[in-house]
Amino acid sequence: MLSKNTLKFIKSLHQKKFRKQAGSFFVEGSKNVTELLVSDFEVTHLLYTRSFGDENVPLISNLSAECYEVDERILESLGSFQTNNSALAVARMKVPATIVPQRGEFVLALDEVRDPGNLGTILRIADWYGIRKLVLSARSADFYNPKVLHASMGSFTRVDFSYVDLADFLSETAIPCYGAFLDGTNIHTLKLTMEGILVMGNESHGISSEIAEHIQHRITIPSFGSAESLNVAIATAVICDNFRRFGN
Amino acid sequence: MLSKNTLKFIKSLHQKKFRKQAGSFFVEGSKNVTELLVSDFEVTHLLYTRSFGDENVPLISNLSAECYEVDERILESLGSFQTNNSALAVARMKVPATIVPQRGEFVLALDEVRDPGNLGTILRIADWYGIRKLVLSARSADFYNPKVLHASMGSFTRVDFSYVDLADFLSETAIPCYGAFLDGTNIHTLKLTMEGILVMGNESHGISSEIAEHIQHRITIPSFGSAESLNVAIATAVICDNFRRFGN
Repeated sequence: MLSKNTLKFIKSLHQKKFRKQAGSFFVEGSKNVTELLVSDFEVTHLLYTRSFGDENVPLISNLSAECYEVDERILESLGSFQTNNSALAVARMKVPATIVPQRGEFVLALDEVRDPGNLGTILRIADWYGIRKLVLSARSADFYNPKVLHASMGSFTRVDFSYVDLADFLSETAIPCYGAFLDGTNIHTLKLTMEGILVMGNESHGISSEIAEHIQHRITIPSFGSAESLNVAIATAVICDNFRRFGN
Repeated sequence: MLSKNTLKFIKSLHQKKFRKQAGSFFVEGSKNVTELLVSDFEVTHLLYTRSFGDENVPLISNLSAECYEVDERILESLGSFQTNNSALAVARMKVPATIVPQRGEFVLALDEVRDPGNLGTILRIADWYGIRKLVLSARSADFYNPKVLHASMGSFTRVDFSYVDLADFLSETAIPCYGAFLDGTNIHTLKLTMEGILVMGNESHGISSEIAEHIQHRITIPSFGSAESLNVAIATAVICDNFRRFGN
């Protein structure tokens, strides 16, 4: 029986403050919940509709979590989706990864990427390009924000991340540091390899001057038209594709 | 004096049906409105705050449109933004472009891209990569949807477009036709040039089988990780970047 306290607890997880206090977060929808269930996150609660239950018997029967079959209206009242006819799950946050870039590694770094949709999309892109390490400045969007997790389409389960003092982080690294600017070297003229830290900046202001000091390689996606800029997630994908095209 | 009828007219433009009847649409926010004012669209109404007016005196004084200085609450009650302290403008739709691809040209084609945010982002990408011609299947998002125009960040003023029967369009063209699939040729192994039609498919189902019949070159962005797919706007940007990197 789903208690009032559990319902209240799940609702509280919409807010960062309560997620932090509880060390827990929730995800919604079939794709994200099934990805969560097969990941190494510790799931504590699973609420699901009959149809989701019927389709995912092995996943659910092996789960050591509080499981409840519920009506989809319950899922909709608890989560952020207007419609949710599948599932909602609560899991424990992971201990943040300690990311120390080694020679031959590639790390993505975000300097105040604040929009949750952008961060989630960037996680999906990182996962597509096989980038497993992400560092974020303290003022970036919260990794466990429901909108971030939703936009990541399950990729949040496969990227290690850490919130860091980005200036300190970059000043202590021994591998090359690249940053996306509007006035850097045309990436089409470079033969990039998958070693380094790639810094992407804020949606409005780009990379801050404090962080820019630590960047050795200012790079730019060449423009052939009149748009002033590209969205930060779009730019991340294009640059990662350029890094990946010549192999390691 | 702003009449009730004008207010009612602007509000009606939220709906595609009334946009079509009136042959008019609206855009909001400083970036999109200023881009609209310097474009060749015929602006019929401009509502702006005092601060927007002060910053854009030359733009406004040369305008042959009904102009009203209003309180930002008026802008917010008429448009779709929660806050709008700049402007809202109404313009006439353009006569749709007739797009007949010629040798040496590049045309972007969308097969049921339904999300307005994706279409708007794709317009911005097309504009960045200097792609001026876009065809859309009838069931794609409406170009004049306020969310499309907003996401395009002004780029909607620089892309010619037409809604077409995409199968007919592709069957009649003499230039190469490329399509984004998950099982095509790795784009990193191709030396693409800026001649052809690039077809991007629906957010859930990709390119429909009816359209796929007309595609000679199935291409794929190589994956290095575990994400199942990339968002259609992200994929469009990466593929356009690959087309652009070897010049014409």
